[in-house]
Amino acid sequence: MAEVVESRQWVMTAYAEEGLPTPEHVTLITTKVAVDAASIPEGHAAVQVLWISIDPYLRSGMLGRMDGLCFPPFPIGKVITTLGVGRIIRSKDASYCEGDIVLHTSVPVADYCIAPATMLRKIDMGTRISPLDYLTAFGLPGFAAWIAIHLIGNPKPGENVFISAAAGAVGMLAGQLAKLKGCRVVGSTGTDEKVNLLKEEFKFDDAFNYKKEADFDAALSKYLPSGIDIYVDNVGGKMLEAVLNHVNKKARIPLCGMISQYNQVWTERDGVRNLLNMIGKEVRMEGFIITSYLQQFQDFEQEIGEYLNEGKLVSKVKIVEGIEGFLESLLSLFSSSNVGKVILQVNK
Amino acid sequence: MAEVVESRQWVMTAYAEEGLPTPEHVTLITTKVAVDAASIPEGHAAVQVLWISIDPYLRSGMLGRMDGLCFPPFPIGKVITTLGVGRIIRSKDASYCEGDIVLHTSVPVADYCIAPATMLRKIDMGTRISPLDYLTAFGLPGFAAWIAIHLIGNPKPGENVFISAAAGAVGMLAGQLAKLKGCRVVGSTGTDEKVNLLKEEFKFDDAFNYKKEADFDAALSKYLPSGIDIYVDNVGGKMLEAVLNHVNKKARIPLCGMISQYNQVWTERDGVRNLLNMIGKEVRMEGFIITSYLQQFQDFEQEIGEYLNEGKLVSKVKIVEGIEGFLESLLSLFSSSNVGKVILQVNK
Repeated sequence: MAEVVESRQWVMTAYAEEGLPTPEHVTLITTKVAVDAASIPEGHAAVQVLWISIDPYLRSGMLGRMDGLCFPPFPIGKVITTLGVGRIIRSKDASYCEGDIVLHTSVPVADYCIAPATMLRKIDMGTRISPLDYLTAFGLPGFAAWIAIHLIGNPKPGENVFISAAAGAVGMLAGQLAKLKGCRVVGSTGTDEKVNLLKEEFKFDDAFNYKKEADFDAALSKYLPSGIDIYVDNVGGKMLEAVLNHVNKKARIPLCGMISQYNQVWTERDGVRNLLNMIGKEVRMEGFIITSYLQQFQDFEQEIGEYLNEGKLVSKVKIVEGIEGFLESLLSLFSSSNVGKVILQVNK
Repeated sequence: MAEVVESRQWVMTAYAEEGLPTPEHVTLITTKVAVDAASIPEGHAAVQVLWISIDPYLRSGMLGRMDGLCFPPFPIGKVITTLGVGRIIRSKDASYCEGDIVLHTSVPVADYCIAPATMLRKIDMGTRISPLDYLTAFGLPGFAAWIAIHLIGNPKPGENVFISAAAGAVGMLAGQLAKLKGCRVVGSTGTDEKVNLLKEEFKFDDAFNYKKEADFDAALSKYLPSGIDIYVDNVGGKMLEAVLNHVNKKARIPLCGMISQYNQVWTERDGVRNLLNMIGKEVRMEGFIITSYLQQFQDFEQEIGEYLNEGKLVSKVKIVEGIEGFLESLLSLFSSSNVGKVILQVNK
């Protein structure tokens, strides 16, 4: 007889064209999932979801059309999927056993799911790299930071690196990576508490609270008096414009995200008026998405794995407990209220 | 006894912060130049100036401060200098003889000058490459086009290349180079006459008059239905913004110049609001100035020299006759009135 578990799940109910998503757009419903061996197809496993990665690109999936991030819309009426970590509760695939902890590359925001083994990756619990690292330094935020700093930024020791949203999931790791490569690193963030964190815990050389700076140009003159060689842009808009007034010759600007820009239609966004500066200073600005760099994922894992095993990379996480906190955790990305990577804890 | 010639020359008299330069800013005065052997220092030569290259960056030198192009201001009270071609009328350097035609890399906008031999380069009159080619395809506009297409754009056959200010000095050459590399090439320009020129003389696949297009987005959809892989930006502003709505994955945007942006202070320039598109499409935008690429100048000369000898590259020039036409020729760069490279003919 089928063994059935109740599974709450977040479903896309209406697209949010502008502004922040609300309970009109996403709804928590309860469904049933059959998790007995007979109900699970061969090559699949039943997974209890533990942690869900909460990232800004989820907002793009709720737009109902392809935006600048080119992230496809979540289908209406379907559960929202993303990256997460779970526990195998029953397996019909030889590679996985009950109790295994796995990374799931397309996990539903739900309590339980039946997953094809091809979407799972077993997490070795016998190393210093923890399951949460797979959603932070050893996972996509770390990979994004590594692409930005190592591949696109390619810093020389002594260069000046500026990072916006520096206490966020990608920023905190990009700053530490740049420090490990011998750069002077300055970050901007949205609270004084996070300024202290950047300097004390993440060992940034300096940091400032952008909400207390009426004039970004003056702030950059003060905190980066030798100019900017690499700018890891996580916010876009006015800060990007200000940076272009402070770039050094041959500066590199990896574009990781533009958190300030996701909730308006593009014609209402802040225009960057000084792209002309890119000519005289020969600046290279480059957008990227991590799936284009998967052939370098092993290089990333090796380098970051060593740092993690040597205790050289620190990650902060903000854990929102309970699946009902999904919308709240997503909105928190846009409010400067977070420190580090936001993770939704669905089950324990 | 000193042999003296009268030499008219254009002098910087006041900087033009905004708008176009006027006779208040530059003045034609008459001076005397001693051209007898005793007056010329060793290692120098007396040069009669023939042709002066008229380029948009001259506008930046008249600002009185470093702008986005990082071109240093012309000193007040001094003659304006640029690139030109002249004829040796007396030489105190063993490498040059009377009658030699030379490229002068810092020629004054004047009838005559005394030049150090290090600033001169003899033009071999026995090839198919003419002295005017040294100011067009075989000179800086050609080098800029080659950097944009060959080094930064690095096109694959069949890719879609869009070029703004396409009938200008750099644009006409960039388009032909992209055609030689097997691309589909579309240009925008400011008159119907130039649209025809692009299609008929420069063999562009298509071209449009941007002044007749109320909606650049619609124009790009029409003329580049398969999107844009390389955009050679010579204008900046609204056209750059429109292009970012039509870029293909991994598009490249070499920034050669931003002719629409030179006559306003930067805070009044058109802001580009859709840089977010650079992330999803993984666009690389890169400014450059040619002096950073001098180590590749020989590669350029070899490739372009072959095209010129095979008759595969055509240049149009607009020659303004008489040194008194300097200001007029400079202003013409900003008015869509030119076809091809603007050259001031000082002497015959």
